[in-house]
Amino acid sequence: MSGGASAEKKFDLIAIGRACIDLNAVEYNRPMEETMTFSKYVGGSPANIAIGGARLGLKAGFIGKIADDQHGRFIRNYMKEAGIDTSQLKVDLEGHKTGLAFTEIKSPEECSILMYRDQAADLYLRPEEVDEEYIKQTGILLVSGTALAQSPSREAVLKAVQLAKRNGVQVVFELDYRPYTWKSTEETAVYYSLVAEQSDIVIGTRDEYDMLENREGGSNEETIRYLFSHRPEIVVIKHGVEGSYAYTRSGGVFRAQAYKTKVLKTFGAGDSYASAFLYAIIRGKDIETALKYGSASASIVVSKHSSSEAMPTVEEIESLMANQPVIHS
Amino acid sequence: MSGGASAEKKFDLIAIGRACIDLNAVEYNRPMEETMTFSKYVGGSPANIAIGGARLGLKAGFIGKIADDQHGRFIRNYMKEAGIDTSQLKVDLEGHKTGLAFTEIKSPEECSILMYRDQAADLYLRPEEVDEEYIKQTGILLVSGTALAQSPSREAVLKAVQLAKRNGVQVVFELDYRPYTWKSTEETAVYYSLVAEQSDIVIGTRDEYDMLENREGGSNEETIRYLFSHRPEIVVIKHGVEGSYAYTRSGGVFRAQAYKTKVLKTFGAGDSYASAFLYAIIRGKDIETALKYGSASASIVVSKHSSSEAMPTVEEIESLMANQPVIHS
Amino acid sequence: MSGGASAEKKFDLIAIGRACIDLNAVEYNRPMEETMTFSKYVGGSPANIAIGGARLGLKAGFIGKIADDQHGRFIRNYMKEAGIDTSQLKVDLEGHKTGLAFTEIKSPEECSILMYRDQAADLYLRPEEVDEEYIKQTGILLVSGTALAQSPSREAVLKAVQLAKRNGVQVVFELDYRPYTWKSTEETAVYYSLVAEQSDIVIGTRDEYDMLENREGGSNEETIRYLFSHRPEIVVIKHGVEGSYAYTRSGGVFRAQAYKTKVLKTFGAGDSYASAFLYAIIRGKDIETALKYGSASASIVVSKHSSSEAMPTVEEIESLMANQPVIHS
Amino acid sequence: MSGGASAEKKFDLIAIGRACIDLNAVEYNRPMEETMTFSKYVGGSPANIAIGGARLGLKAGFIGKIADDQHGRFIRNYMKEAGIDTSQLKVDLEGHKTGLAFTEIKSPEECSILMYRDQAADLYLRPEEVDEEYIKQTGILLVSGTALAQSPSREAVLKAVQLAKRNGVQVVFELDYRPYTWKSTEETAVYYSLVAEQSDIVIGTRDEYDMLENREGGSNEETIRYLFSHRPEIVVIKHGVEGSYAYTRSGGVFRAQAYKTKVLKTFGAGDSYASAFLYAIIRGKDIETALKYGSASASIVVSKHSSSEAMPTVEEIESLMANQPVIHS
Repeated sequence: MSGGASAEKKFDLIAIGRACIDLNAVEYNRPMEETMTFSKYVGGSPANIAIGGARLGLKAGFIGKIADDQHGRFIRNYMKEAGIDTSQLKVDLEGHKTGLAFTEIKSPEECSILMYRDQAADLYLRPEEVDEEYIKQTGILLVSGTALAQSPSREAVLKAVQLAKRNGVQVVFELDYRPYTWKSTEETAVYYSLVAEQSDIVIGTRDEYDMLENREGGSNEETIRYLFSHRPEIVVIKHGVEGSYAYTRSGGVFRAQAYKTKVLKTFGAGDSYASAFLYAIIRGKDIETALKYGSASASIVVSKHSSSEAMPTVEEIESLMANQPVIHS
Repeated sequence: MSGGASAEKKFDLIAIGRACIDLNAVEYNRPMEETMTFSKYVGGSPANIAIGGARLGLKAGFIGKIADDQHGRFIRNYMKEAGIDTSQLKVDLEGHKTGLAFTEIKSPEECSILMYRDQAADLYLRPEEVDEEYIKQTGILLVSGTALAQSPSREAVLKAVQLAKRNGVQVVFELDYRPYTWKSTEETAVYYSLVAEQSDIVIGTRDEYDMLENREGGSNEETIRYLFSHRPEIVVIKHGVEGSYAYTRSGGVFRAQAYKTKVLKTFGAGDSYASAFLYAIIRGKDIETALKYGSASASIVVSKHSSSEAMPTVEEIESLMANQPVIHS
Repeated sequence: MSGGASAEKKFDLIAIGRACIDLNAVEYNRPMEETMTFSKYVGGSPANIAIGGARLGLKAGFIGKIADDQHGRFIRNYMKEAGIDTSQLKVDLEGHKTGLAFTEIKSPEECSILMYRDQAADLYLRPEEVDEEYIKQTGILLVSGTALAQSPSREAVLKAVQLAKRNGVQVVFELDYRPYTWKSTEETAVYYSLVAEQSDIVIGTRDEYDMLENREGGSNEETIRYLFSHRPEIVVIKHGVEGSYAYTRSGGVFRAQAYKTKVLKTFGAGDSYASAFLYAIIRGKDIETALKYGSASASIVVSKHSSSEAMPTVEEIESLMANQPVIHS
Repeated sequence: MSGGASAEKKFDLIAIGRACIDLNAVEYNRPMEETMTFSKYVGGSPANIAIGGARLGLKAGFIGKIADDQHGRFIRNYMKEAGIDTSQLKVDLEGHKTGLAFTEIKSPEECSILMYRDQAADLYLRPEEVDEEYIKQTGILLVSGTALAQSPSREAVLKAVQLAKRNGVQVVFELDYRPYTWKSTEETAVYYSLVAEQSDIVIGTRDEYDMLENREGGSNEETIRYLFSHRPEIVVIKHGVEGSYAYTRSGGVFRAQAYKTKVLKTFGAGDSYASAFLYAIIRGKDIETALKYGSASASIVVSKHSSSEAMPTVEEIESLMANQPVIHS
């Protein structure tokens, strides 16, 4: 795994999957029933990771599908302004709507999301809309698990993974498990394991790996024994406030602890983690340092109101890494 | 047609159909892409009419279905506080979401709505959830056309109309045509004509009657010849700024002109019209006066930001009727 | 109600609804698992009634939709050869298949049908395919209840009924209730009562009227009190081997007993009954005689292997009426 | 690749996928419109292969789903009597019907099939119904391409393949492409390539490999270069009357020519080919001989009326191999 691979390529990272709208409670620390105003942001895990990556200076592209309406156009405008290539952001012409996430922040510990994902436009990306020439141009293809939840988006992602492998592009799989889009845990396990086995890097929480392995209470040891018998080179497993672990095929084990911060909400932590971790890997930093970048970035985002808009710069991350104590657990 | 009929009944008016969420642009006179904040209101034509009626002092009830989530609970709370009986507001247990309407106000002339109506909870009201004992208790059953757009809400409304007729309850049909929920104009015409033929009062715009009659460029004369050969006693046809007409089976023709006002947006005009017109009829006023109540109420709502929240009181309507000039056309 | 009305019209009777394929067990008196060969016939209640009517000399037409395949073409050929006008037999171009009914005859008392009705082509007749000019040309429009089970066939039938009423065409409603195509008994009751209230003649079994009235154990007295408060002039209620009753709005009550016969299977009894009863009515016979025609025709068909192919001629019916004893019960 | 692997296992071969009903024209050499009688057989590619294998003496099992009706029970009875283990033949409890195939034999060159595959019960096998313990007990898992066409059968097969690989069971992929069950060729290519890359043996026609590779006019050289860069050890490509080729990873190329026969119809040729080829491989014969077994078995089945019932014995195949000339092309 070398960050240099993408040096001569047009893109460091291309993310594939959903780009949606977050409607964040303006009045928070209360139930959403009592929230009367909502602020609009771009959301969706792979969109956030691409935005986070671009904020850090990565050359990023995006493959996805947006609604042919005001929300869709807002997403394209926002991503463009963030510096992301949107040439492969397709427009849905069948009347599907942009996915929505209304966030409810009752307290830092009690956050929930009211999702509008029925027939969301992003799930209608078709395999024939995935272009081999585009994928060739990136060092990393970032796949978000939610894009596997329904056809035809599912087939579009499976094709993208196949094209990446055929063209020597590294596949990073961010598990990003969202129960509401899947029919059953069995179905989830089938596709999660299928893609994880073909990926170079897998990133997720301990719970998400249990989903992938179709079990409860799995251990990191079992997970890496399974995945290292297939293609993965790096497996990152997050354990919340206890910090995160990275395992390498060659036997390396690394741990990063979470940074202390004033938590406003938990949304966006995983996305900011992934973008900063990948940034560090792409820039050739060692895995232990990359984990710290991830942790630092996450701790910044959870202290702010939005996910996408709050993505930090390199300076902010490195300043926090230099000054902020970690949570010992 | 006598307003006295409902005097001893528990309710003056029970509305059946959708209750949804409006998300109104806080920053307006611009495209929605540039709107960053939205305010939340209860919306949906029959909900607005019930709210408008309750604001005017009518005893109102509501038959509908809401999502089992924060938006659904907000709707119930709001309607309760408005004084509406919500005992027949069913909760959807199959995961359907509350319908949403994002409003875009580019200018008073250029308003549009971005709708989220796919599998909206209100369309899942089932016929077995419509209770004959409840319908018996009202003088008027108000039916909104959109509730006919899909099964099983369609059958719930057809059953409610049948029960109303069987129990001597007057049926008022507000055409409320919304193209996005219907499969074809042929299908719309089938159900619109079916319900109109069985209603006592029909209210709609000239365009909506054309839809009902499955034709283009129809005339009021043809419409009333058709409808008066069936059950209707009063037919109200609205012609926008040219004012509105009411026809009675006995040959009466009445016209009301629109009141001058500073228009902010056009949403909510029809609902406020219907609630004030019906209020006046129920209170025993003559049809010409009832038309004026409708026009006055509409002109108040179009000058304000919301639909439901802006519903006027009797005093506001009567004050405007006393003081405001009409638009001569 | 006069049979003479249709004298100058092009058609005595136009049936609307399904035309399907029956696959009848060649080896019978055994479970279908052991049947190795099946014979192909045209089936479907309104198709059988039209075929039965044509066999009796009526001028018959058919409004329906067939699959664009070998089974669809077989149906058209068969109906044409039976003398039925098939100009309004539309061809489905969306890949829907012909409905199938595999019949199992374990014994005369134990007959069952294995149905293939998912997305059957006949249920895709659209309202815009129903032509007012065609309906104008008939004395009677025969509606089969099953065609109301799903959209868009449901709307096509509702439109046809509306056009019939507008043009002075008598509507005959054969309830023909088949549980497998309906979502719920509530939904069935909504549409059955809607169409029955608008029909001139209603024909069904006691069980089917209970379905229409959404009750259990209803009585003929309640049924006729309800229906005669709407449009119907004649109500025919069948009680199996106990015979059938006809009620008229003017107070007439008539009963016909079933003819003795060697029963092979029970399929097709209702369809042959309806075609012969209507034949007699159209030819100006009195209601009591019409009931006997119906009974005689049914007793012939239940003694034979098929439904459509077995439809009797006038001579066969009248010969049986002259010679065969009835079942006293 | 050694046939010995399965020697101590309970099953030589377990097939997964559809088991349906064939309704074969009794009167043939004419359009199906003129066929009045049909004979019933078990059909479906993997069912036929299992039946063919059992007829040759293999220990066979079947994983699938049948309708809860007479056709479903007929399938189970027939397979049991053929000696196949049906313990994993699940019964659909959601009302899905058995798939049907009406065959039309206009001439030996002009055969077509009228398919009833909408919501066929076999496509509803769920991943949680696939049992690892069962799959462990076989030497070979035979996967039929059609079972990949729709969810949840698709996920059931993907899971079965994963379990087979995890337990050292050889995966044989019979492409069996049927256009009517797939949404698009892109979707087909995604799943066909995914499973082919993970299989040990792949069997199909030249056209089916073009589908798998999402191209037109592909060559055998390109196909084997692609597949041998993944898991497959043997690739069999059939070219109709020109015979068939088998390629091995180690560079072997073998060809078998078709045997002369009196062709009645073309159905069933591929299934009988696969069962006899696999029989020979399992019995330890060399690949060239296995190809001859396949060709001989196919030439027997195309001369007979059914597919499943016509599956030959070892004696019939070897007798034909000994006596029948091949077609030189």
